Amino acid sequence: MRLLLLGFGTVGQGLAELLIEKEPVLKNTYNMECRVVGIADMLKGSIYNADGIDLKAALEKAKAGDRLTDLGDAFAGDALEMVKSANAEMMIEMTYTDIKTGEPATSHIRAALEKGMHVTTSNKGPVALFLNELTALAKSRGVKFLYEGTVISGTPLLNLVRETLAASRITEMKGILNGTTNYILTRMEEGMGYDDALKKAQELGYAEAVPDADVLGWDALAKVTILANAVFGANNKPDDFPCKGITGITPDAINDAKARGKRFKLVGKVWREGDRVKGSVGPEEVDLAHPLAGIMGATNAVTIRTDTLGDVTIVGPGAGRTETGYSMLVDIIAAGGVR
Amino acid sequence: MRLLLLGFGTVGQGLAELLIEKEPVLKNTYNMECRVVGIADMLKGSIYNADGIDLKAALEKAKAGDRLTDLGDAFAGDALEMVKSANAEMMIEMTYTDIKTGEPATSHIRAALEKGMHVTTSNKGPVALFLNELTALAKSRGVKFLYEGTVISGTPLLNLVRETLAASRITEMKGILNGTTNYILTRMEEGMGYDDALKKAQELGYAEAVPDADVLGWDALAKVTILANAVFGANNKPDDFPCKGITGITPDAINDAKARGKRFKLVGKVWREGDRVKGSVGPEEVDLAHPLAGIMGATNAVTIRTDTLGDVTIVGPGAGRTETGYSMLVDIIAAGGVR
Repeated sequence: MRLLLLGFGTVGQGLAELLIEKEPVLKNTYNMECRVVGIADMLKGSIYNADGIDLKAALEKAKAGDRLTDLGDAFAGDALEMVKSANAEMMIEMTYTDIKTGEPATSHIRAALEKGMHVTTSNKGPVALFLNELTALAKSRGVKFLYEGTVISGTPLLNLVRETLAASRITEMKGILNGTTNYILTRMEEGMGYDDALKKAQELGYAEAVPDADVLGWDALAKVTILANAVFGANNKPDDFPCKGITGITPDAINDAKARGKRFKLVGKVWREGDRVKGSVGPEEVDLAHPLAGIMGATNAVTIRTDTLGDVTIVGPGAGRTETGYSMLVDIIAAGGVR
Repeated sequence: MRLLLLGFGTVGQGLAELLIEKEPVLKNTYNMECRVVGIADMLKGSIYNADGIDLKAALEKAKAGDRLTDLGDAFAGDALEMVKSANAEMMIEMTYTDIKTGEPATSHIRAALEKGMHVTTSNKGPVALFLNELTALAKSRGVKFLYEGTVISGTPLLNLVRETLAASRITEMKGILNGTTNYILTRMEEGMGYDDALKKAQELGYAEAVPDADVLGWDALAKVTILANAVFGANNKPDDFPCKGITGITPDAINDAKARGKRFKLVGKVWREGDRVKGSVGPEEVDLAHPLAGIMGATNAVTIRTDTLGDVTIVGPGAGRTETGYSMLVDIIAAGGVR
């Protein structure tokens, strides 16, 4: 299977490492041989070689802060041009997320699907905004559009729902979908002020320099929209749902909740109300006895309510180099593996 | 798909209710039509009808405490004879569990597999003792031997591992595998003595009149053995692993742990040590910050440690009429559904 990687930052490098490490398993268990033929990265340069790129050498260049084009095989055009001209079976879209427009990732994905390439992405923008359109396009071309990494990263939430809750009716999904805000709230409960907790999250690489997407709830809202459309069969945009972040939560409010046996969490929810699908993001005081209350730091968790099992909760890492890279690998296997 | 139900107690009735309720979903989503042709129950009598049994009528009889044979179609032989003489594609084994011998369930399962029937079971005995033999027998006959319901009931642990953690190396599984003992420990931490907590568990139907299988850890040990053999590829018997129950835990020990920020849990574990697979069951003082510490009452949970994702935890109901019935339904779909 010839692969095209768009974006070679943390996630792209994490995937490349896994493709090297898991080569024997892919071959022995899934009868797959993966070959990366193109990498497009705005900062590190773009390379293309129909015979395959030396991934180890590319990783070394990236880690040293050098340009990929030092390896030769420089590709002159941008990512979209690479998608259009490349000969590959699957495109992996890992460029930066723009939650408001979904670009340029959505254009990359449309072009790849139109050419009949499978696509997987960790990019929440295109999935939150255009899931149904992109799924229909993939179907019309007989290929797969997969996005396990967009909601709680490699933790297999979407796969769990698709593969193992067969014949169940899911009535609600509710969870901690953003690790950065959960980290900040955890620190604040320990006594830190909001500004210090945010600074600490930025130092650790959890929060961006402009932290709006996390702290105003937009990232969680994108995930809520993905769940509404992918699991509940809705056709919603993020703007359809109310969204409130954590910036209004004061240390006093946190202490007051604590005294009453409660804990503030930024909760993303999707649920059915009659025939309608509803969604929301906002801070909630969760009872300490609830499974979500115990989710601390940058961990994510989702509780799935079904008619057959009551509540099932899955807890796992919400981000990370290997973890998000792994979600791409699982989707690559789903698209091309034979067991 | 013609089904044979062995055992028509809580689980069997739960499955029958789901087969009725989910008939449209099975047809529309999985292109399946299920027809129960035989029910064998030691207390309620056995019936067989090649054209199909009226499940609603059978449920009414069972709930009223009447015999199934009142419906006509009485079958004269025992369960094993029904398996041998019946014309069916799948046998669902839900008779009582004997963890020490696995009988009579194992004989039923062998006979069904030998005839080329798919089998699913909620019965831990045969799976803990003879998993590898029964899996090989199923393979040789080109049918499936499935057992999702044997470990944390309908909560899709085994499916999660099989379907969604592709290409991951699992290094440890650790969890609360027995709801009854977890309920007793929860009550004891609230101040109840062991005898009162056990009595309460018996009143609620969590614990048997002879509670040994739960409180001495045998039930958890059976599940540990199933995980070792099914997930870690071992070939172990329950007796290979050390096992300790909760009967030695005093209220003083619980209070002492509490004072140190710890909580007693009966923990079942499977892990790798070099090339060897190890397992154990025993009480552990779990740190309150650990996800397993927050699992209270009769809920079950398992933390799966992998090379790709770190720790992923799944939490769900460990037992129950609908929940365990559902695990059989999922296996029926896995054996015969086409999506």
